[in-house]
Amino acid sequence: MPRLWNDTIEAHRAAVRDATLDAAAALVAEHGLTAVTMSRIAETTGIGRATLYKYFPDVSAILLAWHERQVTRHLVHLSEVRDSVGDPAARLRAVLDAYARMSAHRHGGDLAAMLHGGSHVAEAHQHLRAFVRGLLTEAVAAGDVRDDIPTDELAAYCLHALAAATALDGADAVARLVTLTLAGLRPAT
Amino acid sequence: MPRLWNDTIEAHRAAVRDATLDAAAALVAEHGLTAVTMSRIAETTGIGRATLYKYFPDVSAILLAWHERQVTRHLVHLSEVRDSVGDPAARLRAVLDAYARMSAHRHGGDLAAMLHGGSHVAEAHQHLRAFVRGLLTEAVAAGDVRDDIPTDELAAYCLHALAAATALDGADAVARLVTLTLAGLRPAT
Repeated sequence: MPRLWNDTIEAHRAAVRDATLDAAAALVAEHGLTAVTMSRIAETTGIGRATLYKYFPDVSAILLAWHERQVTRHLVHLSEVRDSVGDPAARLRAVLDAYARMSAHRHGGDLAAMLHGGSHVAEAHQHLRAFVRGLLTEAVAAGDVRDDIPTDELAAYCLHALAAATALDGADAVARLVTLTLAGLRPAT
Repeated sequence: MPRLWNDTIEAHRAAVRDATLDAAAALVAEHGLTAVTMSRIAETTGIGRATLYKYFPDVSAILLAWHERQVTRHLVHLSEVRDSVGDPAARLRAVLDAYARMSAHRHGGDLAAMLHGGSHVAEAHQHLRAFVRGLLTEAVAAGDVRDDIPTDELAAYCLHALAAATALDGADAVARLVTLTLAGLRPAT
């Protein structure tokens, strides 16, 4: 087959896949995890049921793929935030702030329990910890963060502390959480 | 039936229950979640299989009861730690330190996913947050903790930050985590 034709097929497949993930996520958000079926997703997207089954074996597989896409997008967003700020201290604050705001919008309950068992989540956590460790190493070198605790431990502290955003109400509370977490990182005086 | 007889039956039941929970937890720790069966638990405890089924319908029910007992024991332990220290700042540090050390020994993987869905866990989290909030309120009044952030938010921060202990290696790292978490709480200078 000519290359152009292959590209067209690939683009079509990616579009079907994206539309399916979007529809499944919207249906779960609106009706809850147990109310979503393959038929309902097919209906919403306008894709035939038989075609849908060629892409995904079941609803769980769709939601897992959706979650993998979300995790990737979040990591890309954090990289963009990092690259948009020059100063190490401001950079660290901007990334931690973006991460806390993401955490505040995290899903909970059954859906979280189902998705967070996926191996992509463990990988993303590793990646995120290394990413934050990099920012902390820069900030320690600049004298903005304490140097008496290994940066890998500081990274674990940051990510866990900011996950408290899931338990808070409102953007102001999330901003205070970021302030609090950064206060722990200040160099000992 | 005379009261003494009832007491004896109650004590016997509690003993059978406790022995079952201990055996199930030990088996899971040694062989993993999937290797543990009702027959194996009956064998280990020396309780007949038929008797065991009168107490618990399946292995999950046993592990859930075991976890409820663990959670209760942890809360009791934290109360004892609190009551053994007089000064608000030292008291807060002692309780947070005990909590971090508990978190470091927490089970993970399949077992955690299964157990943490239980409603007793949500209740325990609520209780724990209120408990820590109480300690923080005292410490704020004594001038040992910052007063610019609501104590309920400070409590959520503490518990999440200290849960990073599950991701750390060794007692020294856990001690540094407690130091770090407390540094975030210091009054603004």
